[in-house]
Amino acid sequence: MLPFLDGELLLEELEKLAQIGRNPAGGLNRTAYSPTDLEGRRWIEAKMGQLGLDIQNDAAGNSIALYPGRADLPPIALGSHTDTVPEGGDYDGSLGVLAALAAVRALKAAGIQLRHPVEVINFAAEEATMSGGTTGSVAMIGRFDPAILDKPAWDSRPVKTHLLEAGLDPASMNQAKRSPGTLAAYMELHIEQSDYLERQKLPVAIVEGIVSIRRYIATFYGYANHAGTTSMASRQDALVMAAPFITLVREVAIDYGIVGTIGKLEVYPGAPNVIPGQVELIVETRGLDTSVLDKVEAKLAAEAKTSGADFTRITSKPPVESDPRIIEAMSAACDELGLAYLKMPSGAGHDAMSMAHICPQGMIFVPSKDGVSHSPDEYTDPESCVIGARVLLAALINLDKVLDAEEL
Amino acid sequence: MLPFLDGELLLEELEKLAQIGRNPAGGLNRTAYSPTDLEGRRWIEAKMGQLGLDIQNDAAGNSIALYPGRADLPPIALGSHTDTVPEGGDYDGSLGVLAALAAVRALKAAGIQLRHPVEVINFAAEEATMSGGTTGSVAMIGRFDPAILDKPAWDSRPVKTHLLEAGLDPASMNQAKRSPGTLAAYMELHIEQSDYLERQKLPVAIVEGIVSIRRYIATFYGYANHAGTTSMASRQDALVMAAPFITLVREVAIDYGIVGTIGKLEVYPGAPNVIPGQVELIVETRGLDTSVLDKVEAKLAAEAKTSGADFTRITSKPPVESDPRIIEAMSAACDELGLAYLKMPSGAGHDAMSMAHICPQGMIFVPSKDGVSHSPDEYTDPESCVIGARVLLAALINLDKVLDAEEL
Repeated sequence: MLPFLDGELLLEELEKLAQIGRNPAGGLNRTAYSPTDLEGRRWIEAKMGQLGLDIQNDAAGNSIALYPGRADLPPIALGSHTDTVPEGGDYDGSLGVLAALAAVRALKAAGIQLRHPVEVINFAAEEATMSGGTTGSVAMIGRFDPAILDKPAWDSRPVKTHLLEAGLDPASMNQAKRSPGTLAAYMELHIEQSDYLERQKLPVAIVEGIVSIRRYIATFYGYANHAGTTSMASRQDALVMAAPFITLVREVAIDYGIVGTIGKLEVYPGAPNVIPGQVELIVETRGLDTSVLDKVEAKLAAEAKTSGADFTRITSKPPVESDPRIIEAMSAACDELGLAYLKMPSGAGHDAMSMAHICPQGMIFVPSKDGVSHSPDEYTDPESCVIGARVLLAALINLDKVLDAEEL
Repeated sequence: MLPFLDGELLLEELEKLAQIGRNPAGGLNRTAYSPTDLEGRRWIEAKMGQLGLDIQNDAAGNSIALYPGRADLPPIALGSHTDTVPEGGDYDGSLGVLAALAAVRALKAAGIQLRHPVEVINFAAEEATMSGGTTGSVAMIGRFDPAILDKPAWDSRPVKTHLLEAGLDPASMNQAKRSPGTLAAYMELHIEQSDYLERQKLPVAIVEGIVSIRRYIATFYGYANHAGTTSMASRQDALVMAAPFITLVREVAIDYGIVGTIGKLEVYPGAPNVIPGQVELIVETRGLDTSVLDKVEAKLAAEAKTSGADFTRITSKPPVESDPRIIEAMSAACDELGLAYLKMPSGAGHDAMSMAHICPQGMIFVPSKDGVSHSPDEYTDPESCVIGARVLLAALINLDKVLDAEEL
């Protein structure tokens, strides 16, 4: 039987954490490495301390707390992050960290020590505010790119300025590195950030993998000329050229069952009385199946070419499959708790994606109201929060038994 | 017979003026009130001085030179501007000022004094670099809006900073004001900035009027959500909503025989991984017939409404008709010189538009190669430059006879 997990306390802690960085107008502001983010982290560390856990801060600002197990086995890590986007919500990241703490608290209260030690990790800078995202976990696998230091963070100031203000040494980020073998597994509970669970009225999902993300720059070339004097017949208007492409990206994404977005589009020179001479836009596609992404890429590239536009892939993150043993441990946990569940890909990137480089990983989702996240309107009902934490705990206990079984 | 106008000298002066603010890479940079702009103005004033003209600088930085005539008649003014857009060309504005000087030089060399005194005006800040355009001529009619002082100029610094750096008193701009009756007429030679003359292989055009310019903000409302997790079915993407409207603006402009442009478009929040929650764009329409502009406005407003977008008119400049006596004086001038000509509207705003508030006005156009302006590629062939100046001189002599005829 599952040890008792104190759901009331978990919900109370969620509420308290949501007061740190709270904008009275609604949003939550704990952008990475800001004073409120650090305040949130110290608050979490105090909770870790109350459980008697040994706490470490690494060179990237990640907090790592250890609940003991057998000394000869590597820990199973549970975690997420407590930083937010500007004007973010109360659940994204926070729920995963507090649920991990709640799971360890449940073990401790029941006097249970697992075979594996258990780590609770509060990752630094998961949100894409530091030029990119998952900064803390990327540093933890030793892949932090120093070129990012001079790039603009969300507020246009360089990333390194934020690191320095948080008391970190920008040159030492990769000293947070841990090698393959140092962890037995990584599991994360997170809000879904889409509405599949809500639509299907299911309480929980097991993540099959994290989608591949590709980004492209498309540049349309017109001729910047006077908007008053240039006849419609003589114009080469880059924005008019780009308009059908905007529509096409949506249509192709629907046709191929992936998601496709143009989230950024710049018009040059961008004056009301000048015909657009150039339009630069960023296309993002996401899907679990890279062969489908290849087909979409070919289609968009061909279409851009017919308009004389450049179409260049700028980034490509491969998909990350969840470990089958972890999926199995999670499925068994749901069964034990009598919960119907869904298996689905994660359309969002997560720290689990980084952790996959050094250990097996898997994730659990709970419903997001209306699929909304990164917004003050983000909401997951209290029951789902607690259910998610219980699945995490049950999956941890299951996984502890199957991993390193030869060491039994 | 027309007094001799020294075309060689005019072309030589055009070339010399184009060295002031020259970027070796191509463009001409005499943005309003900058050191190079002031250098250009002082150079023109030196030329005015060489003709023995009395020179005044008004509170907005306009240069006004007087060639004497009868003391009881107001002057006929000829002019244009020598400021440029950033990386502009050699002819826009400069040709009109130097042609006005060449016309006065021709009168002086021939020992001719007209009934009316003749003014040569080099307007300040005609280009739309000081938040708006025609700043000098707007101040000359006493309509400079002090609210502009704190608005960003082309380089994002406030307009008043530029004025202060040019030694002007931002609070005194409207002291440049001249009242109706202080000028008998205003005539301006300018490059066409479109390709109608070139297409019809004609050397000169007489401007019937300056088009009405209307600007609108259209705001499309979507819902900013995660580009990875939000299914295509659940999305409200403001950019996808705006795309057909971009195409529509072009189609409607063509249908109604006007020009219509979306030169500025902003996507919010503007991140590659966030579905556009809002798109704000500026539509500009221009035409001489306001009833046609009304119909286009109704059409665009209706279409915006079907997408739930806001569509608001933000500015409307009425059309400015050229004075029939000036058109007649210019037509007669072309006939005398044996020149075929075209009558056409001006799609661009000019200082003549301001001057229409205090005196009759008219303009002459000469061809722009490929219709290009506001660019280092701007070009008007030498012969056309000289022809334009001769038409201006002949029109001046004709107009001098018909205006204030009762005073003969």
